[in-house]
Amino acid sequence: MTPDDISLAHALADAAGAAIRPWFRRPFLVETKEDFSPVTIADREGEAAIRALLARHRPGDGVIGEEYGDDRPDNARVWVLDPIDGTRAFVAGRPIFGTLIALMEDGVPVLGIIDQCIIGDRWVGGVDHPTTLNGERAHVRACEALGAARLGTTGPFLFDAADMPRVDALRGQVADSLFGGDCHNYGLVASGHLDLVVESGLKIHDWAALVPVVTGAGGVMTDWAGLPLRQGSDGRVIAAGDARVAAATQALLG
Amino acid sequence: MTPDDISLAHALADAAGAAIRPWFRRPFLVETKEDFSPVTIADREGEAAIRALLARHRPGDGVIGEEYGDDRPDNARVWVLDPIDGTRAFVAGRPIFGTLIALMEDGVPVLGIIDQCIIGDRWVGGVDHPTTLNGERAHVRACEALGAARLGTTGPFLFDAADMPRVDALRGQVADSLFGGDCHNYGLVASGHLDLVVESGLKIHDWAALVPVVTGAGGVMTDWAGLPLRQGSDGRVIAAGDARVAAATQALLG
Repeated sequence: MTPDDISLAHALADAAGAAIRPWFRRPFLVETKEDFSPVTIADREGEAAIRALLARHRPGDGVIGEEYGDDRPDNARVWVLDPIDGTRAFVAGRPIFGTLIALMEDGVPVLGIIDQCIIGDRWVGGVDHPTTLNGERAHVRACEALGAARLGTTGPFLFDAADMPRVDALRGQVADSLFGGDCHNYGLVASGHLDLVVESGLKIHDWAALVPVVTGAGGVMTDWAGLPLRQGSDGRVIAAGDARVAAATQALLG
Repeated sequence: MTPDDISLAHALADAAGAAIRPWFRRPFLVETKEDFSPVTIADREGEAAIRALLARHRPGDGVIGEEYGDDRPDNARVWVLDPIDGTRAFVAGRPIFGTLIALMEDGVPVLGIIDQCIIGDRWVGGVDHPTTLNGERAHVRACEALGAARLGTTGPFLFDAADMPRVDALRGQVADSLFGGDCHNYGLVASGHLDLVVESGLKIHDWAALVPVVTGAGGVMTDWAGLPLRQGSDGRVIAAGDARVAAATQALLG
């Protein structure tokens, strides 16, 4: 990962935002995908805009995208894209969906962007690039125990039935819970406004960009067993600002 | 209700926003109220700013506010205030909380503002004032049946246990559900981006401003039995863009 990759990632986020913004709160068709999640023309045009720039500037790199699939996914360098994480929020006109752009090298996410193109929140983090929010350094906050932690999670019913009792137990132990939010919640962990996000069912395009943002701000992001997120991870994730909260959550969920 | 009241309501929302914005994503103490909901200095300073203007411009009117209680609540004209609806979202740095300002005349809400002071969404509706979002006319959208409806609700666990089976049944019938959002969801119904909001536990300062915004955009807002919201309502509310969805929801929940 080079400084040029960071500049390019900003340009990719700019391009996606320019493609998505004209559709926000405008009429469009909402289609339902096989997994029952919604998709719109804004998702497709956002990803197409990113892929067009990658084809021009990094023609040899691999690309994995939510909407247009895999190109050279086994390359050492792979860009992982989700043009609109939180399409339900986008469809409802709620401006806390996000564009996710990650660069993975040898299977490890080394650069990530969470970009909210309507309100202008852009978190960028990576190896040797401490996380920033709109150019200002972002830091997680200390939280000594689960009982003091503020938890964010997008949908309380997105967990598998077998996992629900442990998730319910977690909700019972934290100080407070906030629902909705999608990728934006992970940015709020990086900036020290939330302490914990727990979710499941995330695909690689959902989590790849989050890892560098959270860890580059001093946080911890793992699967429920406490292992690093890698291709093949089962999609159950924990993001915590404080390692003590991460450990307590892993102990409860893992 | 006069045009002057609308001008004043804008000034009240401006003043609250000016008091709240400096605290957004800044350090502050989060206290927990008796009902376990959080409160911050931004809630208090927001309401104080509104009350200061009301004391100067409408000294004879009543005021009911979430943070500073009731002044002359039995007056024919009463301003009903919630400086930050969605304090959990505010505390987490999520910019979809809102300031709620209503004018009630003889117990009926005749003017309402939902103001999001960070992203700049301001819905205003009232008697003889069709709802606007930032000055542009807002309209609900048609939705012929529950099966096509997109439902928003802040917290899935905020309902009484006795109500949960009916709420679960509703979630099973709608096209899709979105969580989080607080008062902002009602603005999205008014603008035709969501079809339905169902909640419970709302106090008068939570719902008074929502009614004129939703109904002034062509929507329906009632309690679960289909009755108008009035002082003494039990806090279970339905807001729907289309009367057919409202009726189907009342039939299911009422």
